[in-house]
Formats: sequence, structure tokens, C-alpha cells
Amino acid sequence: MSETLRLLFPQWQGANSILLRTLAPDLKEPGFGYTLGSRMINLLVPDPNTKTATVPISMDESPEAIKTENGIFAYQEIKKNIQLALDILNKEHPKKVVTIGGECSVSLAPFAYMAGQHKDDTALIWVDAHPDINLPGNEYDGFHAMICAHAMGLGDEGILKLLPGTVSPKNTLMVGLRQFTDPAEKLRKELGIPYVSCDSANKSPDEVINWIKQSGKTKILVHLDLDALEPKDLWVALGNDPNGLHPSSVAKLLNAISKEFDLVALTIAEPFPREQMKFRSFLEELPLK
Amino acid sequence: MSETLRLLFPQWQGANSILLRTLAPDLKEPGFGYTLGSRMINLLVPDPNTKTATVPISMDESPEAIKTENGIFAYQEIKKNIQLALDILNKEHPKKVVTIGGECSVSLAPFAYMAGQHKDDTALIWVDAHPDINLPGNEYDGFHAMICAHAMGLGDEGILKLLPGTVSPKNTLMVGLRQFTDPAEKLRKELGIPYVSCDSANKSPDEVINWIKQSGKTKILVHLDLDALEPKDLWVALGNDPNGLHPSSVAKLLNAISKEFDLVALTIAEPFPREQMKFRSFLEELPLK
Repeated sequence: MSETLRLLFPQWQGANSILLRTLAPDLKEPGFGYTLGSRMINLLVPDPNTKTATVPISMDESPEAIKTENGIFAYQEIKKNIQLALDILNKEHPKKVVTIGGECSVSLAPFAYMAGQHKDDTALIWVDAHPDINLPGNEYDGFHAMICAHAMGLGDEGILKLLPGTVSPKNTLMVGLRQFTDPAEKLRKELGIPYVSCDSANKSPDEVINWIKQSGKTKILVHLDLDALEPKDLWVALGNDPNGLHPSSVAKLLNAISKEFDLVALTIAEPFPREQMKFRSFLEELPLK
Repeated sequence: MSETLRLLFPQWQGANSILLRTLAPDLKEPGFGYTLGSRMINLLVPDPNTKTATVPISMDESPEAIKTENGIFAYQEIKKNIQLALDILNKEHPKKVVTIGGECSVSLAPFAYMAGQHKDDTALIWVDAHPDINLPGNEYDGFHAMICAHAMGLGDEGILKLLPGTVSPKNTLMVGLRQFTDPAEKLRKELGIPYVSCDSANKSPDEVINWIKQSGKTKILVHLDLDALEPKDLWVALGNDPNGLHPSSVAKLLNAISKEFDLVALTIAEPFPREQMKFRSFLEELPLK
């Protein structure tokens, strides 16, 4: 069994790239932001000593490739990418997987893989400004907003049947949550998923650590959507919700989890290097050849 | 003879990295910004079809390695790097060199190489908020502020004797200049180096193109310090001087030069990805291994 696998997963298809163009009108190819973000993280913290695998992602933006089916944007591509990632995990069989997204839905395959390995000993810590528990058929069809739901076994049957395991909602905790809008908020309450406020997590990791201790689980999955961070401190995500987590608090939290439990899967998701995307558009216009 | 060579030149030693720490106190290793900037540009606009060479730059920040001699910070490293770059150019013998810095002083070797090849048929277009014609012994010892002077044959004898060619001040034009402080401004006037204002260059490339036509030169060297750009449009440099060039105007200018003349050397200098440097510091704190 390998130790840690770094899984580069530059997937953009989980966001509705047509909507993205309206959110980032100053960028030429906003969908590429996620792809670039993944490559950039690997450039910022290269790790030649850790085994690295890359999920091969199509850049096809044709209407056929991004077709919404079953309420999910680019449904066929999403399904294909989940299987590609699972194939890598089944082959490498890592003890820990660090997934470098791409948008949030890159977490599904590694989390499902680890939940399949560790069954009921698994807990999920979702560090995000948003709960990502939309369901197919809700207004927004981007799969990245539904990914925590699928990791808990709720959602599209065609996708759920690919998954080797899921984590129950009662073993899921949210941190950094500050978007309390329906239908996700209504579902969160129905499912009884608790959250730790930004204020508490900024003070100390204790509330999260205590929750994990009380859960009795030892194998921990952590999803970090970079929009959980306070954008005034560090704005490197697509989202820009104020009153978030300080980067130092997130680092402290993740290290505390890693120290006290077995952090078997960690995802860094939603990097979106806006300024570098604009820089790229400029550089592409220059006579460099 | 090769066609275009892309020269990756992640040199940081031309800036006084001790001063840099006071200019960018929020960054952990500001000197690394230039190095990262060079790698980032290559990530943003990869070019697998153009031959690429990398000048191997030391990351040694010991007092010995960055010692100021002859009024120049990290003098020995600077001299070594110029020679390393010239060695590559003498070996590859390119028709055109696109240099990806690093701080401004990465231009010296490729410009001197091309001036050596094309002798008196060479003109230099310096696109920069600053004239970079400080001389050794002026207050600031960063070589990047002296580099246009050395490209014109003025400055440190030990460095000048390495150079296969220089361009005369009368064949030099500045564009985007908006820092008119002595002693550089006094020297610029003494040397009679003209400049095209940001207003004029933002309107059209005509003034620059006409100056080149009147010079009668056909082989053109272009230095682009990214701080020439208006930071409100695109702030990717260390410098942050308002009322600069629009990115679209710079693209138009460089393409007009490339179309009408033989653009034999183009440098992109002073990339300084602040936000990504902060992001890197955050990522380095996470339990990714």
C-alpha cells in the first residue's frame, strides 16, 4: 500500500461554465480558472517525494459535452471523471489521498473510496462557506453545489451507484458555513448536520476536535473549499463571502485533525486565480513566438 | 540557427531582497516572488513548440551570496548569471529570444547578445514606469534599477566587459516612464533619451513606430517591465505606479513593432504574484503529506 497519493484533479465541469461567465465577466475563459488553479497549487507547493497522479480532464466545452442531464451540468463528463479518479485510487490504493482541485466536486471520488475502505469508522469535515447539499433538480445545475449530498449518499442514482462508500449525515460536520439559503439550509436542518461557526473555529479547533472525539470515528475526510477563508486575508477562490475563517485558523484546524486522528483524505478545492487569468489573457496577446 | 528561444530566467538577485522585505512585509520570502513569477508565466502560456532553456539560478540568500560589491547587490551572482545566460545564447544562437524574468536585469544578457549580433542596426525600446538608469554608487544597490544603463554601455566595468554588444543612448526610447526622480532623471536628460508618454502610447503605437522608423534601425529589443501597466487594469508587478499603460495598448504596441520590424529580443520582467505568494505560505502550513 502506498502512503500518500497527491491526486491532481483539474476538473471544471462541476461548475456551470455558462453561469461562470456572468460571475466573472472580466475573464476570457472562466472555466479554465479551476484547471489553472489546480496546476498552480502544484507549482506553489511541488512535492517530488509524494506519488502524484493526474485525472485526465477534457477541455471540451461543446454543447454536447456540457449538456445538463438528470439536473446535472456536464453529467456524462462528471460521471466519466469520477470513474477515472476511482480507477487511479483502486490501482494506487493509498493510505492518504490529497486531492488538488478543481471545483468542489473533485472530493467525491476520493471520499467515496476512503468511505469504502473504512466503512463506519469514517467522519466527514466539510470546511466551506456553502453546504454543497443541493440536489439534482434544484435551480442551479452545477454539481459542485451537490457534492456533499452525494458524499453522504443522497442525489443522482447513476452517480451514487459508482461509489464504493458514503458517509452518513450524522457523521458529517460543517465548518465555516455562512450561506444559509434554501433549499440547502432546509435540507441541512432535516438531516441534522451541525456546523461550527467561523467565530468558534477562528478562536480554536476545539469544537471540531471535540465533535470528532464524540463521534468515535478515527478516519477523517476533510474538504476545504477555499471560499471558507476570509477573502480580506486571502482571496483565491471563486466565492467571496465575508466574515470567514482566517488562513491561520484553517491551518491550525487541519493540523490538529491530522495530529489527533487519521486524516485519510484532504481536498483543496475551488482555487480560482483571477488575476493570473487576466495576466494569461494579456500574455496570450503578446508576440512571444 | 534556431528560430525563437524562450529563455526562462528566474533571477531575483537584481533586487535588494532585504529592501524587498520592507516593501512586501506581508510575504514570507519576497525574493522568491520573481522566481515564482517566471515559472508562473511559463505555466500561463506554455509553449511546447518553442525551444526553451532555463538559466539555473541559485536560491542562496547567505550574506556571502548577496554581498554588495562595486555598489551592486549580489554582485558575484549577477555576474555569474549573465555569463550563464550568454553561454546559452552562444550555444543556441537564436534569431529571436523571449526572456521570461525574474527582475529587470534579466534583459542584459539577451540584449547584449543581440546588440553583438546586429551591431549598429539595433534599437532599444524600454517599456517601464522607471528608466532603470541608476549607476553603481547611487543610493539603491539593486542591479535591476541600473540595467538599461548597462545595456547602453554605462556602469560597472567588470560587468560591461562580459557583454558582446551595447546599444547607444541615442538609439534608445522609453515608453510608460512616469518616475522622474534624480539621479536617473538627470542622467536621462544628459544622455538625451526621449520618452513616449503613457497618454500617447495609450492612444496609439504611432509615436513609437515613427521614432523607430526615423532611427533607421531594423533589429528591435523590447524590455517590458510589468510595472509599466496601469495597476488598476492588471497589477502583476512589484511596482504599483498609477496612470500607466493599458494592457491592450502594450499588446498593440508590441505587435506593431513585431509586424513592422524584426523584434529580435523581448523581455517580460518583474512578475511578482503577491496573492499566490500568500497562498503558497498558507498551503505550506497544511498537512499535505
